[in-house]
Amino acid sequence: MADEALFEFLHMEVVSYLFKTADEEKCIPILENMGYRVGHSLAERFTRDSSRFKDELDIMKFICKDFWTSVYKKQVDNLRTNHQGVYVLQDNRCRVLTQISASKQYLEAAPNYLAFPCGLIRGALANLGISCIVTAEVQNMPACKFQIMIQRSQ
Amino acid sequence: MADEALFEFLHMEVVSYLFKTADEEKCIPILENMGYRVGHSLAERFTRDSSRFKDELDIMKFICKDFWTSVYKKQVDNLRTNHQGVYVLQDNRCRVLTQISASKQYLEAAPNYLAFPCGLIRGALANLGISCIVTAEVQNMPACKFQIMIQRSQ
Repeated sequence: MADEALFEFLHMEVVSYLFKTADEEKCIPILENMGYRVGHSLAERFTRDSSRFKDELDIMKFICKDFWTSVYKKQVDNLRTNHQGVYVLQDNRCRVLTQISASKQYLEAAPNYLAFPCGLIRGALANLGISCIVTAEVQNMPACKFQIMIQRSQ
Repeated sequence: MADEALFEFLHMEVVSYLFKTADEEKCIPILENMGYRVGHSLAERFTRDSSRFKDELDIMKFICKDFWTSVYKKQVDNLRTNHQGVYVLQDNRCRVLTQISASKQYLEAAPNYLAFPCGLIRGALANLGISCIVTAEVQNMPACKFQIMIQRSQ
């Protein structure tokens, strides 16, 4: 039985429904917001029993390993940071992209499927006390880079 | 890590989004249809390697056991049939209902959360060659009865 398929199929249906019914420019923010709320709730549940994180990098490692595995059944492949509040998470086989197809033909549809995962990351980090902006960039399907820019309070 | 929470949180978000934005009378059919499409795809995947089912009852048992467990992490508690094309699946702790709350106060919101599971069952059965109508009835939260009426081709 393929349990993870359930979430993936539902996500595909939601993307497909929204782009059929809502104004196109509203779809991405709606999906990002759904992802935010789901990510926020998930982080709440996942970290209920875990000890406090040491620092920001420690939280990022949690997102790359436990959180990503729980959602997409694999870890993020690479984590980099400029040590000035920017983190880049690279997933070489991003599941939402492998689902739609690993060809350039579908490159323009990719942002529709990456809004939810961007929101997931932003929501999970918000729950862990980190305010940020998350964007995604696809160069070679199905590889994807998520860029996290920390928003420091002034 | 609570993997099943992912699907559940997303389902809650979708219900909540739809009832905020779509016409109320359209929400239930939209959710039922999403469920149908997800159920159809899931059944396709789950039964890819399994041997053919013996008969209709055998398929219903698959829905009650493997399929339900995969989606809701528990089996259906009771399966009954009148042997004339009506099956009743009783789930004493229906997960979509335990999520919203196990009190009468939320009874009127229950149909909003049961449309997707009704569609799931109908979609899975359609994939397995059974055309039917599925309805849900709540008497005591969070127990729920799903009634399946087989549509025989004339």
